Amino acid sequence: MTVTRDDIQLAAQRITGRVRRTPVLRVSPTLTLKLELLQHVGSFKPRGAFNRLLSAKEQGTLTGQGVVTASGGNAGLAVAYAARELGVPARIFVPVNAPATKVARLRTLEADVVQVGNEYAEAYEAALVASEESGALIVHAFDQPEVVAGQGTLGLELLAELDGFDTVLVAVGGGGLIAGIATAIGDRARVLGVEPELAPTLHAALEADRPVDVQVGGVAADSLGARRLGALAFEAVKANDVRSLLVGEDAIVAARTELWRDYQLAVEHGAAVTYAALRSGVYQPAADERVVVVVCGANTDLSTIG
Amino acid sequence: MTVTRDDIQLAAQRITGRVRRTPVLRVSPTLTLKLELLQHVGSFKPRGAFNRLLSAKEQGTLTGQGVVTASGGNAGLAVAYAARELGVPARIFVPVNAPATKVARLRTLEADVVQVGNEYAEAYEAALVASEESGALIVHAFDQPEVVAGQGTLGLELLAELDGFDTVLVAVGGGGLIAGIATAIGDRARVLGVEPELAPTLHAALEADRPVDVQVGGVAADSLGARRLGALAFEAVKANDVRSLLVGEDAIVAARTELWRDYQLAVEHGAAVTYAALRSGVYQPAADERVVVVVCGANTDLSTIG
Repeated sequence: MTVTRDDIQLAAQRITGRVRRTPVLRVSPTLTLKLELLQHVGSFKPRGAFNRLLSAKEQGTLTGQGVVTASGGNAGLAVAYAARELGVPARIFVPVNAPATKVARLRTLEADVVQVGNEYAEAYEAALVASEESGALIVHAFDQPEVVAGQGTLGLELLAELDGFDTVLVAVGGGGLIAGIATAIGDRARVLGVEPELAPTLHAALEADRPVDVQVGGVAADSLGARRLGALAFEAVKANDVRSLLVGEDAIVAARTELWRDYQLAVEHGAAVTYAALRSGVYQPAADERVVVVVCGANTDLSTIG
Repeated sequence: MTVTRDDIQLAAQRITGRVRRTPVLRVSPTLTLKLELLQHVGSFKPRGAFNRLLSAKEQGTLTGQGVVTASGGNAGLAVAYAARELGVPARIFVPVNAPATKVARLRTLEADVVQVGNEYAEAYEAALVASEESGALIVHAFDQPEVVAGQGTLGLELLAELDGFDTVLVAVGGGGLIAGIATAIGDRARVLGVEPELAPTLHAALEADRPVDVQVGGVAADSLGARRLGALAFEAVKANDVRSLLVGEDAIVAARTELWRDYQLAVEHGAAVTYAALRSGVYQPAADERVVVVVCGANTDLSTIG
């Protein structure tokens, strides 16, 4: 099951009007920030969620049973939001230890939150069972073709918004976003994955030449804490020669502080890794290289910034 | 001394490359947010500050003595930033009771901060004396032609960024921003001033048919706390039939919370008044009226949001 650029173009048509076309901020002749943190519910995830739900609707597989997923983070918020907008119920499985604030936020989006198991693998198993029993559509946080194609629409937007660019820095957790962007524009620009040293799913997959489980932790684990790169992401990064850049904890924290201090952007740690790669020197562009930094999430505790 | 559209066009040329061209976020077919909070140092004020300094530089009146101003808020930050960028010293006068965090932030911009007097009127007097004694250029927070012309460049940007719009909502304190925007585009769109009920400088000026002192207070007083509308602003609002919309404290607080919750924008209270006018129903656009809400400042304590 390969995702193609055609899939992404179809996704863009499908989700138009459902997602925000997020603006770019040109901060210098060679540096542009893509402000995807301004997307609905604060991350890029609604692109994929809407494409998954609307594709199913076209095929008749989105029923009154609605959707199920397992995520207390950005993916869960996106599925809950998309379901509410499309008028179908959403059941979101999270572990029993999911933070109360995340559960409460999902409920404000009218989702039915079910707390089960001690970690996400168990919550996902429960979601699968619920899907099979009820006929509700299951949405994966990153490793489904419609989800990847939806995230790829961000890449198409860059082509429309900018006169040209050489390099795009994209945060990697499960890899849905970078898979979509690499497929959308990998032949037009250098697409680089950035991930925390403490959550190196892409790095480990490239080293093993297949997705493998990694230990995840660190400040960005709430958004980039997938334990393994998705199969679709692995295929896309191999096809587009995507490299992994690793950034340390201090660099992530410093970049997040700077994004607020210098650009008035309040971002989650996972969304600061791309800027961190530039600011820390982990990535050193050529003098005239035009770099796009995707800033992809804002779901953070504001009291922990600057 | 009238500010003209030509002055604003010249200002735009003068400050290009010094200020950010801030993006817009289209949130519905009839509502667009102008994200001026992403400007350098977190407000629109650098537009006017750079135009004032660069105009003086052209005329030879910006000397090694640099600039002086009186403001511990956005205007002070903007003057300090512009001076540093242009390589001249800045001396900023603030009252002795100015918050330590604001003084510290001015000093990170390499400004010489002088604490004098108990309120801004006294600090401004001291700045004037310093200007006369030293030959340093004095920059007013809002009531100077170059400052107004600089702020007006935001209006020109809207013309370039949007296909068309009917109405622009602009926050009013001393009135520099609305004077500039009304002069720039008052013949192309309805420009409306929004101000807190507790800081009604425009409302009072229109009622008295001249700028008059008002009591100022409330949550937005740190950015919209000028005690009297500027003379240039009064002239511009009269020439362009600008009305005043008053918003209450609760509406301002609620709008600020919503701007974070729904758009991931962390804004100061003064910058939330425009969105507050819409959300509270103080301004009720027609069904097809295309409204631009200027969101003009981010200098706030993040721990006080949501």
